[in-house]
Amino acid sequence: MSGRLFVVGLGPGNPDQVTPQASAAVAGARFFYGYKPYLDRLDLRPDQLRIASDNREELSRAEAALTKAAEGETVAVVSGGDPGVFAMAAAVCEAIEAGPKAWRDIDIEIVPGVTAMLAVAARIGAPLGHDFCAISLSDNLKPWDVVERRLIAAAEAGFVIALYNPISKARPWQLGKAFERLRAVLPAETLVIFGRAAGRTDERIEIFALGEANAEKADMATCVIIGSRETRAIERGDRSPLVYTPRSLASQ
Amino acid sequence: MSGRLFVVGLGPGNPDQVTPQASAAVAGARFFYGYKPYLDRLDLRPDQLRIASDNREELSRAEAALTKAAEGETVAVVSGGDPGVFAMAAAVCEAIEAGPKAWRDIDIEIVPGVTAMLAVAARIGAPLGHDFCAISLSDNLKPWDVVERRLIAAAEAGFVIALYNPISKARPWQLGKAFERLRAVLPAETLVIFGRAAGRTDERIEIFALGEANAEKADMATCVIIGSRETRAIERGDRSPLVYTPRSLASQ
Repeated sequence: MSGRLFVVGLGPGNPDQVTPQASAAVAGARFFYGYKPYLDRLDLRPDQLRIASDNREELSRAEAALTKAAEGETVAVVSGGDPGVFAMAAAVCEAIEAGPKAWRDIDIEIVPGVTAMLAVAARIGAPLGHDFCAISLSDNLKPWDVVERRLIAAAEAGFVIALYNPISKARPWQLGKAFERLRAVLPAETLVIFGRAAGRTDERIEIFALGEANAEKADMATCVIIGSRETRAIERGDRSPLVYTPRSLASQ
Repeated sequence: MSGRLFVVGLGPGNPDQVTPQASAAVAGARFFYGYKPYLDRLDLRPDQLRIASDNREELSRAEAALTKAAEGETVAVVSGGDPGVFAMAAAVCEAIEAGPKAWRDIDIEIVPGVTAMLAVAARIGAPLGHDFCAISLSDNLKPWDVVERRLIAAAEAGFVIALYNPISKARPWQLGKAFERLRAVLPAETLVIFGRAAGRTDERIEIFALGEANAEKADMATCVIIGSRETRAIERGDRSPLVYTPRSLASQ
């Protein structure tokens, strides 16, 4: 008897940015697995159960959810943002590949969501309006030299760069080092956006020049967007500036 | 008297993937500017007016919408997917920067949405589960040699690559050329996903090996995702395979 597993993206945190598809998945599931701050966003009924786990326990959380679904239950694994971007969808796939054959019979439905970089971009203008990339700055799961190589390749090729997982208590120096490396490739005036809690009441979106960007202003809930040479700001008097990357690029 | 301009992402096409924030923006606006197929998705009241324009008229559409908002009206510019990803938000910013000073006083609200690559990824597994980039394959707005340089830089650095605007009647050869270039960098067995109309009734998601990927199978509504060397498929008998990119990467 195989059940059903939803992997649900709850969006950046504003309830108005949760899709009806995600809300329906939440209404239909009985067991909920996730990092506690994401589970805390759910308004559940008494017959629905939360099983919280720590931020760095993605694989064991996926295994627990699959085990429960394999018993025939309807289960949801929840992520902030989009579950396919540095979140639970890949962890669930990893667990299925390494797990018992029966897990391949579970109905898996992945429900996409608005990922952090899109929410931050929308609050400031259109910094992702041209080619861009998303890099997780965590070196828990890949060597730091690969992170640096990708940052430099992306900046040299003209991509705007969105950084996920920029900093944490266990990883205090990586963002500063990333800025240092990028300063060797990009002009000091390149625009950098620190976006935190986009669309929520505690939102904080700040713009810096790369030459002055201070990693200590970010925390683990910040999405950092580093512009390309083309990214620019439109001043608007008392209103906050619009930061955008033009759609077009002349010959270089 | 300055009005209000919403730049709204309607998501990939499934009404269940339109956020409540986007629905509220649509309910609140009176004039709607957009490419006709996106305007056709809206269920408007008799007092709400559609002004359709062609796919390649983004800048003049943005100018028309800003002109109307500057008259004090509440206006919405609609995009499929997310308006900040190869869509109308950057065009609106460009128009504001080049336009009359009064346009800087218009209330601009950009409403993010689920962009195509996230919707396609969700339907197949988690191909964007590790570092990735998004590249528009259109050479209308940038030189083709820049596109090629970015493709190669991204593939060599290990990014998964999502291609937007892969092909059209006016741009028939670019996707085939992109595959040809990538075959020189990536193994022939690298997984390529063609995702069309993800989450809609006419959805078509297909997986190919890069060595056999045929550009003619794509059209302008297709999002093409090219895996990295790490991207893999989990076979599931009668069910469609899950394609994902593991979160972790060993030293290289």
